[in-house]
Amino acid sequence: MRTLHLTIAYDGTDFFGWQWQPAQRTVQGVLESAFEKIADPTSRAVASGRTDTGVHALGQAVNISIASRLDTATLQRALNARLPDDVVVLSVVEASDTFNAIDDSRGKRYRYVIDDSPWPDLFSRRYAWHVRQRLNVDEMHLAIQSLAGQHDFKGYESSGSQRVTTVRTIREFQVARSEYQNGERVLIEVEADGFLYNMVRNLVGTLVEVGRGKRPPTWPAEVLAAKDRRLAGMTAPPHGLYLLQVYFDE
Amino acid sequence: MRTLHLTIAYDGTDFFGWQWQPAQRTVQGVLESAFEKIADPTSRAVASGRTDTGVHALGQAVNISIASRLDTATLQRALNARLPDDVVVLSVVEASDTFNAIDDSRGKRYRYVIDDSPWPDLFSRRYAWHVRQRLNVDEMHLAIQSLAGQHDFKGYESSGSQRVTTVRTIREFQVARSEYQNGERVLIEVEADGFLYNMVRNLVGTLVEVGRGKRPPTWPAEVLAAKDRRLAGMTAPPHGLYLLQVYFDE
Repeated sequence: MRTLHLTIAYDGTDFFGWQWQPAQRTVQGVLESAFEKIADPTSRAVASGRTDTGVHALGQAVNISIASRLDTATLQRALNARLPDDVVVLSVVEASDTFNAIDDSRGKRYRYVIDDSPWPDLFSRRYAWHVRQRLNVDEMHLAIQSLAGQHDFKGYESSGSQRVTTVRTIREFQVARSEYQNGERVLIEVEADGFLYNMVRNLVGTLVEVGRGKRPPTWPAEVLAAKDRRLAGMTAPPHGLYLLQVYFDE
Repeated sequence: MRTLHLTIAYDGTDFFGWQWQPAQRTVQGVLESAFEKIADPTSRAVASGRTDTGVHALGQAVNISIASRLDTATLQRALNARLPDDVVVLSVVEASDTFNAIDDSRGKRYRYVIDDSPWPDLFSRRYAWHVRQRLNVDEMHLAIQSLAGQHDFKGYESSGSQRVTTVRTIREFQVARSEYQNGERVLIEVEADGFLYNMVRNLVGTLVEVGRGKRPPTWPAEVLAAKDRRLAGMTAPPHGLYLLQVYFDE
């Protein structure tokens, strides 16, 4: 028996998120089906975190154990040949038997993509949040300065999770306007040792209020200090969110 | 009665091309339906050229005549509110009564997008042609030098059209590798006074043979000189093709 560490990408549009559900199309479901056809899996597929319906991944980490002796390059080709065209296995590496994508993760990085052009770019309508008003990125940049570092992010956690602690450390937080094929995008990237439920989408929804000029750049820090989700902005929609990378000691 | 000059964009994925067809979803069909609801059209919608199934547009030109007296900004908002989310009206301007998007066109510009990464970028699978082998863009660049200018492009015309002449002038022809959000793209742009049926897709299919190293950079000029479509490369698939712009005297 071997344990594998996979890095996978998926377009979340047509999935009910990562986690297996009866009679729903999920990433875990299609990935496990592909493994069953070719590699004699001896465990479920475990992802570093469950992405919600509509959320995308460019570098999700997964562990799974298999009995097959196929080499990793052959496994990758065989999996990609069997997977639907909205999931791709980017790498397959041998891992220690104890490797676990949740427990061994030392952090994650997310990107959130906003299209703030007057009319939405059609080719990104599943891949970016369209906001009609042009955002003031300088004000958003000011706002995130007080959010980086170690804080209790309870004010940015959606209910429904049961965490021991709501303290997290944001190691990097960036917002920038960027040229894109058919216009411009506002890209928000955030890296932390871990994230609370909907934390990125709640941060983005709050920052967009600042970018729209409806709230001052000091407001997101007030929400942080108050630790009350009801004070924060809306939860940004899932289709602008990408899990970029999961970090491990290695 | 007024004649309007519209510039529209569409994602060709879910359309059976531009032209109205019974019981098929076409761009002309949905655009005329939107006009019928709000603007009392007195003519059909005419596009500068019929795009095929799957081909995209970032700047298609359309003329239509209407009885409504709504101002152009109101018309644009009302049309976009009624159009499905894969078509958008980018501009509406008043035109002379005789304006015709086909006859008055002085040229067009197309872009073709190729993803030549080892595994396809999932987020572009409807918007770029995935070619498994990394292309040699320098060789492709050499090849296009002898195609620019005025030539008889009969060798690059798919059958089924009945043109008076197959002579066209390529005013600009470029190929370049470009950074993209999740990797790289090979972008081919071509501007001409007019195009034959499938001309861009036949040129791209031929150039890709050069980029793959299967043919020398001199080969596309030989196909041109032979004027025989059977000698050229495959017709590149429609989903990498974008009508970028239509040019008019004005």
